[in-house]
Amino acid sequence: MPRCSISGRPPGCTARSSVCPPRAATRSCRSWTSGQSSSSGSTRPGGAGPGPRRDGPVSEGLAGAPWALALLRDARVGRLATADAAGRPLVVPVCYAFDGSGCYSAVDAKPKQTRNLRRLKNIADNPQVSLVVDVWDEDWSRLCWVIVEGRAEVLGAGAEFARAIDLLVEKYPQYRALPLDRSGGAVITIRPRRMLAWRAA
Amino acid sequence: MPRCSISGRPPGCTARSSVCPPRAATRSCRSWTSGQSSSSGSTRPGGAGPGPRRDGPVSEGLAGAPWALALLRDARVGRLATADAAGRPLVVPVCYAFDGSGCYSAVDAKPKQTRNLRRLKNIADNPQVSLVVDVWDEDWSRLCWVIVEGRAEVLGAGAEFARAIDLLVEKYPQYRALPLDRSGGAVITIRPRRMLAWRAA
Repeated sequence: MPRCSISGRPPGCTARSSVCPPRAATRSCRSWTSGQSSSSGSTRPGGAGPGPRRDGPVSEGLAGAPWALALLRDARVGRLATADAAGRPLVVPVCYAFDGSGCYSAVDAKPKQTRNLRRLKNIADNPQVSLVVDVWDEDWSRLCWVIVEGRAEVLGAGAEFARAIDLLVEKYPQYRALPLDRSGGAVITIRPRRMLAWRAA
Repeated sequence: MPRCSISGRPPGCTARSSVCPPRAATRSCRSWTSGQSSSSGSTRPGGAGPGPRRDGPVSEGLAGAPWALALLRDARVGRLATADAAGRPLVVPVCYAFDGSGCYSAVDAKPKQTRNLRRLKNIADNPQVSLVVDVWDEDWSRLCWVIVEGRAEVLGAGAEFARAIDLLVEKYPQYRALPLDRSGGAVITIRPRRMLAWRAA
């Protein structure tokens, strides 16, 4: 899977991506698939959304705007939406790591609890997921978000599982005091198919 | 629709719900339907989730823990998950207002854009939605979240639409400078059927 073209942290971005970098262009929503981008025109914070559905070509990788990739890499929390077989959505906050091509989130619970966790059951029944990372600010000119759409898989062992745990421990020092379970836990891996990004100003 | 039993702001909650109030109990996830609550046992921040699915009785109202209702009332931003007819989820950050029985979020765009907005198309095809409001903190003992599950409807006129706009303008001073469209806009109303709540400590 190709890595994304991530440049350095854009000017104005803090270590925790507490603000979006300013730019000269007007508000817009952009999407990328297979390295292409398209604009959906202006929108407003109150109705900030991904805009009209675009069914572009599916890509194994992403090549979005540097600020959006930096936000996806640096944000400390995301919100993951899954849906069950009947299309009933569930959204939960998640810690995650983005390695430039995929996103990883750990589920560190006892095996029985892990098997019963609803997001995992949803993914088993319906692997389509959506992850949003955003910046909230009372100054709405600083609002921005990145939405990753893709397919999820639950890993419980293997090289990718181990690498995901390493990435998560590297990103979150908290996991050192609360060791992630490398034998009984599970990792949700999200393979992006499309990325949408928007910033207010 | 009955109003929720919201008490005053719990000790430790700031005006913007930046922290969850501490309590003596261990980590747990609770759900409420028809005023009932049930515990799913302990969980961990890294795997913080709503726990096993519980199909309790459906309720038109909510009667959850005071801290959870206060968080739902005071939080400045939530993340709303919808899903299309094929069960493909979409999660977006939203400004919203909670009046004790329902949640309201405005879509303030031009009529054509509003009609095309994907979350609205999703709701038209599949009214099941999930809204999460959470507190992120590097100190994971302060993590908490509330998830509202329910059915959504899109309003474009009428008394409930007008009241929702009033609630949103009251909660967000930003809407005074960026007037919400009372004729061409739309309001998503979420009628909760179940609430899940969790806090780390």
